[in-house]
Amino acid sequence: MAGRVIGIDAGGTKLLAGVVDEELGVHHRTVRRWRGTDLAAVLDTMVEAVEEAKAADPDVEAVGFGIPALVSADGTSHFSTHLRLEGVAIRALLEERLDVRVLVDNDGNLAALAEQRAGAAKGLSDVVMLTLGTGIAGGLVLDGRLYRGSRRFGAELGHMVVNMNGPPCQGNCPNRGCLELYASGPGIGRAGAHAAARDPQSGIGQALTSGRVITGELVTDLAFEGDPVAQAALASVGKRLGVGLASIANIFNPEAIVIGGGAARAGEMLLEPARRVVAELALPPCRDGLRIVHAAFGEDAGMIGAGALALAGGDV
Amino acid sequence: MAGRVIGIDAGGTKLLAGVVDEELGVHHRTVRRWRGTDLAAVLDTMVEAVEEAKAADPDVEAVGFGIPALVSADGTSHFSTHLRLEGVAIRALLEERLDVRVLVDNDGNLAALAEQRAGAAKGLSDVVMLTLGTGIAGGLVLDGRLYRGSRRFGAELGHMVVNMNGPPCQGNCPNRGCLELYASGPGIGRAGAHAAARDPQSGIGQALTSGRVITGELVTDLAFEGDPVAQAALASVGKRLGVGLASIANIFNPEAIVIGGGAARAGEMLLEPARRVVAELALPPCRDGLRIVHAAFGEDAGMIGAGALALAGGDV
Repeated sequence: MAGRVIGIDAGGTKLLAGVVDEELGVHHRTVRRWRGTDLAAVLDTMVEAVEEAKAADPDVEAVGFGIPALVSADGTSHFSTHLRLEGVAIRALLEERLDVRVLVDNDGNLAALAEQRAGAAKGLSDVVMLTLGTGIAGGLVLDGRLYRGSRRFGAELGHMVVNMNGPPCQGNCPNRGCLELYASGPGIGRAGAHAAARDPQSGIGQALTSGRVITGELVTDLAFEGDPVAQAALASVGKRLGVGLASIANIFNPEAIVIGGGAARAGEMLLEPARRVVAELALPPCRDGLRIVHAAFGEDAGMIGAGALALAGGDV
Repeated sequence: MAGRVIGIDAGGTKLLAGVVDEELGVHHRTVRRWRGTDLAAVLDTMVEAVEEAKAADPDVEAVGFGIPALVSADGTSHFSTHLRLEGVAIRALLEERLDVRVLVDNDGNLAALAEQRAGAAKGLSDVVMLTLGTGIAGGLVLDGRLYRGSRRFGAELGHMVVNMNGPPCQGNCPNRGCLELYASGPGIGRAGAHAAARDPQSGIGQALTSGRVITGELVTDLAFEGDPVAQAALASVGKRLGVGLASIANIFNPEAIVIGGGAARAGEMLLEPARRVVAELALPPCRDGLRIVHAAFGEDAGMIGAGALALAGGDV
């Protein structure tokens, strides 16, 4: 166990870095936008972020990175949807340039780890986390340990089919009707656009008519401003999220499901309908006692989890 | 670790019992039909089966029971769909009547344990098993251990929604469009009845016209006899099974998925289309290297798993 480490969350649009202590407190938090998404630019930005954090706290003993990719045990990135890291031995490349131990894991796994170690599901043994963003990242803490699958490519809970007759999934997922299609940020945007077209007099309908792109962010903003049609669109997304959570309840019988990510900003407007659907559709023994809660760490979850990974030397 | 134990699989229609040795070999195998499905009759039949096995091998040191119910850690049955065991402290009741240690677990969990310890997935760390019967029982071996969920009510993989707009699920599941609806024995029967109605000249169509009930068993028999319409019905079930397996591949990234149970008797007629769908729809890193295989132990899996549970004193 190291005393202090650096945790870095390398997201699709930006990088969050901080020094993380043994209680998972964050110090010297910084944010960097990517200067480019090609490998050299991404690595340079990562190295600079580590060097800046080390300048602030020279005693850090390891660096943990969370990246939006499937990451094998040797720290090689597979199937990245954002940062063009497909097949890149990211850990080896970073260790070449940094004189400190480097650990790399999937961002969804690390967010779950953070919430289970110190956040909304602190101390619970069986926790499932969904991070709703451009896609849906999943993370599983089972029997108190991170479960990643045989080659560490599992926990892709966003790519659980909820509608086998549904439209093609997003990005480079070859499936149809995945949960991600319905309950991600773009899914909220699609539900909002649909509602806007049906009800052009509503606030969201007028936004559509005036030529605005109906994003998940806009739907959430309008719902917070009181537009009932935007609120209904969020409720419909929450219900579909609930269908996925009912399956998760039956599969894992977790103590808690934690919902985080930028697209979960609508809060109870999403989670309240999701909870009602779980109460209605999950097997009663799997539903009873299950907590469906908001993430505690917001967008810091991946960074804090990366710190927890580095603190434990990868043994999480 | 005991040297020899009794393993019992208490299924919906009958009970299988045997003496199980440390290599999970079975001796003195017996089958009993239930004389009734009320609690007293079920317990009497269970006790008689144990006493018969003990007469054959007096040195057995424990008894493991697999039952078609959700079973909490204290050996109490919850949410049983067949044997009217809802809320029954089955382990305590049996220990009262038997002077030997009793362990009780869900039958789907134990089938997975058997296949992972000594069967089709022997020695693998991450194994998912589906037992296709009247319903679908699930079992999960993750990181080499049985994963049951926080209160042991998980691994209900048959109650993963694949079609949120589908018809109501079977039995006392409150959900809609669960995998069990499509890929269980009754699901095969429904697919066959649908195909028979569309094609009355086919073998299965003539069976329907002549008033026969189109069960999964009949569909499988006719498919083995060469009826192309029955074969196509099985292929359509296999494809829907594949949709569920693609989600399972993405969620668990297992090394193997084992398919067993009486309704899987159609063999490759089910699994070949399921494999093709997984190859097409799962995330490539989760699909690569995944084996989708037939169970090795047939209907003995639950009994052998019950033996494995008892041999390990429940520490599986």
